[in-house]
This record gives sequence, structure tokens and C-alpha cells, in this order.
Amino acid sequence: MATTDLEQTPVYPVAGVRLATVQAGIRYRERRDLVVIELAENSRTAAVFTRNAFCAAPVVVAREHLAHSAGDTRYLLINAGNANAGTGERGRQDALRSCETLAGSADVPVAAVLPFSTGVIGEHLPMDRLLAGIGAALPRLAADGWQEAARGIMTTDTRPKLRSRQVETATGTVTLTGFCKGAGMIRPDMATMLAYLFTDAAVSQKDLQQLLRSATEQSFNRITVDGDTSTNDACTLSATGQSAVALSAGDGEDWQAFSKAVHELMQELAISIIHDAEGARKFVTVDVTGGGNSEECLRVAYAIAESPLVKTALTASDPNWGRILAAVGRAGIRELDVGRVRIWLDDVPIVSGGMVDEHYREAAGQAVMQQESIRITVDLARGEVAERVWTSDLSEEYVRINASYRS
Amino acid sequence: MATTDLEQTPVYPVAGVRLATVQAGIRYRERRDLVVIELAENSRTAAVFTRNAFCAAPVVVAREHLAHSAGDTRYLLINAGNANAGTGERGRQDALRSCETLAGSADVPVAAVLPFSTGVIGEHLPMDRLLAGIGAALPRLAADGWQEAARGIMTTDTRPKLRSRQVETATGTVTLTGFCKGAGMIRPDMATMLAYLFTDAAVSQKDLQQLLRSATEQSFNRITVDGDTSTNDACTLSATGQSAVALSAGDGEDWQAFSKAVHELMQELAISIIHDAEGARKFVTVDVTGGGNSEECLRVAYAIAESPLVKTALTASDPNWGRILAAVGRAGIRELDVGRVRIWLDDVPIVSGGMVDEHYREAAGQAVMQQESIRITVDLARGEVAERVWTSDLSEEYVRINASYRS
Repeated sequence: MATTDLEQTPVYPVAGVRLATVQAGIRYRERRDLVVIELAENSRTAAVFTRNAFCAAPVVVAREHLAHSAGDTRYLLINAGNANAGTGERGRQDALRSCETLAGSADVPVAAVLPFSTGVIGEHLPMDRLLAGIGAALPRLAADGWQEAARGIMTTDTRPKLRSRQVETATGTVTLTGFCKGAGMIRPDMATMLAYLFTDAAVSQKDLQQLLRSATEQSFNRITVDGDTSTNDACTLSATGQSAVALSAGDGEDWQAFSKAVHELMQELAISIIHDAEGARKFVTVDVTGGGNSEECLRVAYAIAESPLVKTALTASDPNWGRILAAVGRAGIRELDVGRVRIWLDDVPIVSGGMVDEHYREAAGQAVMQQESIRITVDLARGEVAERVWTSDLSEEYVRINASYRS
Repeated sequence: MATTDLEQTPVYPVAGVRLATVQAGIRYRERRDLVVIELAENSRTAAVFTRNAFCAAPVVVAREHLAHSAGDTRYLLINAGNANAGTGERGRQDALRSCETLAGSADVPVAAVLPFSTGVIGEHLPMDRLLAGIGAALPRLAADGWQEAARGIMTTDTRPKLRSRQVETATGTVTLTGFCKGAGMIRPDMATMLAYLFTDAAVSQKDLQQLLRSATEQSFNRITVDGDTSTNDACTLSATGQSAVALSAGDGEDWQAFSKAVHELMQELAISIIHDAEGARKFVTVDVTGGGNSEECLRVAYAIAESPLVKTALTASDPNWGRILAAVGRAGIRELDVGRVRIWLDDVPIVSGGMVDEHYREAAGQAVMQQESIRITVDLARGEVAERVWTSDLSEEYVRINASYRS
């Protein structure tokens, strides 16, 4: 989309985090593609990963290192342009060797390094260039490297996705800053594309992990561009403990404020992915209310959000609500009483009692569809549960991008 | 696709079937859009319908009429351009009134008429024009109206889909002829788009129904263009009994030959839909073998067949097998041993042991992807079950067609 994004917030550096972004030449020319992030001693890191059965080599290694070090992570190593997925045992060895090289230079245990890759699936990493890049990055680590790191992890993204905020607690100010990448192959499942969040509060890994899971569920696990779950999804949350503030899940108000900030920041990052969805012209919020449970709300929401026919109608700004209705109908909800289902475009009622609303006029639907940001609401009228999913439209540009990404 | 389709077979008229196709002006200008098909007395008709919860008014009425008349159907009434779906009680009354008008003119019970509609969802039928069209059609009923009827039911189809064959039995020759429409909103669920099959054999409705269900499962229920199940899917199989041949499911060889012919004809019709898929350049067969059961084979097959990223790679003739691997991985198969999964493009092994095959060369994959017809085979290596699904690619032209269909 051309313009609207969430407002850019100021970016607060997080004490205890240093970043370096260099041009290793993994795939792209004339841009930096390798990011090294250093965490101060005693930091704690939590992570969630893709549930794609074919998860990439770095996901396997990062999971092992995280378990082995119990979250005592010192370095995140991220390359763009090559996913190191579908690369078998050699891919695993490549990921391991990258960690060993970084760990050796920095004098930390190898399990203190978590590797991440994003890009084309099925090609081996150019190890010489990658290892040289690690060597070049270490002397460049700096506390203000946020913008460049957010750019360094991009693939088909058209802009960096970086958000930041500060939280006031009883014992002082806590900073929270994070960035992510993603524009296609987006239907995260229990995790996300690549996202990295950092805070200077001191938090135990257990609390971090629980918070990250819950916030992921309400943010990155609620977006879809094309229904394809990546092999490389990963999201981390690191706490450096460099501020004067220690937080734990039993802390009442302070924890609530911190937890709320993490949820909001991750939702902002997730939404920024949809705003940058490949070829997208529309930002679409799908609200399903009145469900008997969360699962049926999400089935209906994703049936709409992933329907090529709904998405092409959105591209055309065509209030073709019949396609929304057909998607609701095929979502497989048992004993759905279609006579009670209601559908709105923003606040315009379009379907009531299973058919076009008697007051609906095409001009009103048309006016909503012309907008860049559109909300589709479905009331299933069979319970009290509601769920929200964000998506984009499907344009010719999406096809062009994905028919030429490798070439 | 430009050229290849199944070879056109000669079209054998079916004794006891007369057809008329007229221009009622439902939606299109300068083409015929209303088809009336008359079945001789004592014909028997079986049908399967969409499982979309928002099924269209004519589906509701046709189901009721079929149950009420026990398959003693005398007329099929089909309009293109308007689906009469999402039209509530008024839509049901419109469908009923169409049947009553035809039944009154032809002097048959109203339940002997089955209505069908296809086209835009959510608009009311122009009843004046529809009823006038019925009046105009009846005097035009003719035994040779097959080609025009196959054209008359088209919406975004670029060509009619009409197939025919004859079966030799111990007691004489049986004719089987059928036609269908469909090019988008194609992911039939227990039924199909619109398809009509006719034979001059005498067969009980029970045997017809069982045969139709089984053949649908192996034909129309194995294709997908865009994963969207229509509100109006319907498929009928009528037996006029006008030949000297009576068949029943206990008949051994004769029944086998007839059943095989029905299966093959329906598969040919289903395949002809994929050949005419909206904007498609490729015809793709997805074979999943080595599954523990049919359901998991189909989950993997549809995850591939409906992946926008696989489909855009097909459009680009790009052997981007990583996208196929990622689709297999996200299909949700429990305890899938990715180390044993193998994938082929036609006969070229591309993935073995969860990674690129050691003998794979990009040029070999590229050569397959350049073809207009491509077979993707996945071996899950965990059982003996195999399933096949047919699909198409996703081109910019698909988006153009569906972003402009209503306007």
C-alpha cells in the first residue's frame, strides 16, 4: 500500500543490546543482509518457532541451543536471502558452523548463539561469505544499530518494521523495542516470520516464554497474506536486565503494564506486515463474533481472509458480499443457522437473516470498499466468543512478485 | 490454456432427452442463458449438491423436489448469470415459481422440475424475463440441442464442456452423454459445480444415486482451482430407460462396464474444468502416495494444490520446489518423518530424505516446469494409500478475471 502505516514511533535503544548489520553478499547485491545482535551477560531469551514439519536447519539448531542454554543467549545471528531450509544434514552443519564461528570469535559457548535464516528455500548457504560477514560484523556492534538491523533482515518487504515504547513501572522506566520482517508466505502457526523483541527489564526466561506465547497467539498468529506457513518462522523476546527494573508474572500492576506493552507492540508489528503484504492495496480486519468457541471463529475468519475470490473482490473495491457469504458457508461450521448470520462492511449491514439486508444499498458498500482500510464483521449468532484476523487483498502485483521472486 | 484439452469425442444424443436453450436476458447480452431439459416419462434422476451451508435457493428446492418425487424428474431448468444465492425466502419463492410455471405449461407435477442457477451471488432473479424464457424454450425442445445447452450454462468458462460415449452390454448399446460448467470458485465438496449426465439405460434411482456419489468422489471432488466451494454446486445423473437395456448394480460385467464409463466420463468432465480454469496456463496433477490413509493424502495434495506460492511458481515455470516442500510441511500431518519424504516433478526426483535430491539439476526441473501439463508426486513413505487431485496455476489473469467479474 502506498501510504498509511502505523505512525512511526521514536525508537528507544535497549540497554544491553548492540547490533551490527553488514553486506555479506548472501544473495542480494548492494544491500546489507547479515545481522548480528549481541545481548549483555545475564540476559534471558524466549522464542517460538514455526510448526511447519519441514522446519529449516537454523530453526532446528536454534531450538536445540535455546533448550541447552536454558535461555542464556548471547548472540542472535540472522541472514536474509537464503532460508537454509530443505538442505538436510549439510544445512544443519552449516547453521552449526556459523554459530561456532561467532561463538569462537566472541568467546561464548556455542549454545549461546541462535541462528536464523530467511529467503529462498532449498539452496545451500554460501558459507565462505557468511563466515567472513560474521568476522566483519563483530567490530561494528553498536547500541544504535536498530534501523539498519530492521532493514538487514528484509526479503520482499518494501520497508523496515520497527516499533518501540517505554513503560512506567513503580521502580522505573522499562524500554521495549522490536522489529520483524515478512510480506509473503505469511500464515504463522504458533510462531511467526522473523521477529526480535528486546527489553532492558530483568525477567525470568519462564515468564518471558509464557508472555511471548500468549502475545504471539494474539498478534502474529492472527495474520495471513496467502495462507502459506513458512519453514523459517521464529520470534524471540530477550530481556537484558540492564535497567533497574525486575519484573515477574506475579507483580500485579507493573507486570500488567509490561505485558500489555508486549502484546501491543507485537500486534503493531504483525499489522505492519499486513500493511506491507506483497502487492497489497488493502488492509483488512476480519472480525468474527457470536461464535461458540475460538476455533470456529478462526475457521470462519480464515475462510474469508484466505479466499482468493474475497481477496480479488477487495482488490477491485467491489462490494461482492456474496463471496464473503460463500466463504462463511464453506468454513465447515456444524449446524450453522444461516438464517441468523449477519455480515457488515465497516458499519454497513450487508447480510441479515442469511440474505442481503433489506436496507442495504450498493452505494454504501461501494463507499466502504473504496477505502484502503476495511473491516469485515461476521456475527455467527451462536455464542459469545469473538476472534480477529488481519489480512490483505490479492492483486496482480502479488502474482508478479511471486512468479519472479527467484529469478 | 490455449490449446490442449481432452480430445473432443463425438456427441451421442440420448434417447428420451430433449433440450432447448434460449436467450432470456438474465444477465448477459448477445448469448443464450436459459436451458430447459426434458426427460421422457419413467426416467429416474439422482443428484448430489454442495455442502456449503449457504446453499442457494434452487439447491434447497431441487433437493426437496427430488426427495418428494423419489427421482421421478421430468425437467431440469438451468439459468446462467445469476446464482439465486443469498436471496433468502424471496429467492426460494422465485425458484419455486419458476418450477411451477414450467410444470404448469408442461402439465407435470411441480416436484418433477429441478431448478439450477449459476452466476453472481446475492441478486434476485429477473423473474419476468426468466418466466418468459421458459415459455419460449418449451416449443424449441429438440433431441439434438446438446452443444447449445453446454454453452448456455457457461459463466466465466471459455468453452463448453461436453463428453459422450457408448457402452456395449450383453443386451445392447447404452449411450452416456454429459456436460458441465465451471472455471472458478472450484473446490467441490461432495458435489460439484453444475454437471448433467444422461443415459438411455434403465437404472433404478437407488443404483444411480450410489453410482453418482462414488463417481463424484473420484472426479469433481478431486479438483480445485481456488479452494472456494460454490453455493450452487450440483450434479445430476438421469436414466431415461429408452434403450432396450436395463442395468442394475448386481449385473456383474454389464454394470461394471457402465459404472466404469460413468466414472471415466465424469473424470473427463472434471479435468475439462481444470483445463478451462480461470486464467490458467498449466494443468497440474498432484499425486500423493505412501499415505497412512486417504484423508492425509488429500490434506497434503490440497495444501500443494491450493498454495498461492506453488501456483505462482507454476505460472512462472519456476521449479521452486522449496514451496512444494513447505506446503507438505504445513499440511498438519502428525509425526511426519520429513527425512523419508520424496518429491518428483514428473519423473525427475527433486527431494529425497527431506532435502534436495543429490542428483537433481535445476535444468531438469526447469524442463518439466516449462510444460503445459505437469505432475507433482509426493511420497509420504508411511503407508500404502494414494490420492490424486487436479489443479491449475495462479496467474495475473485469474486476478484480472475475478477483480472484474461483476462489473
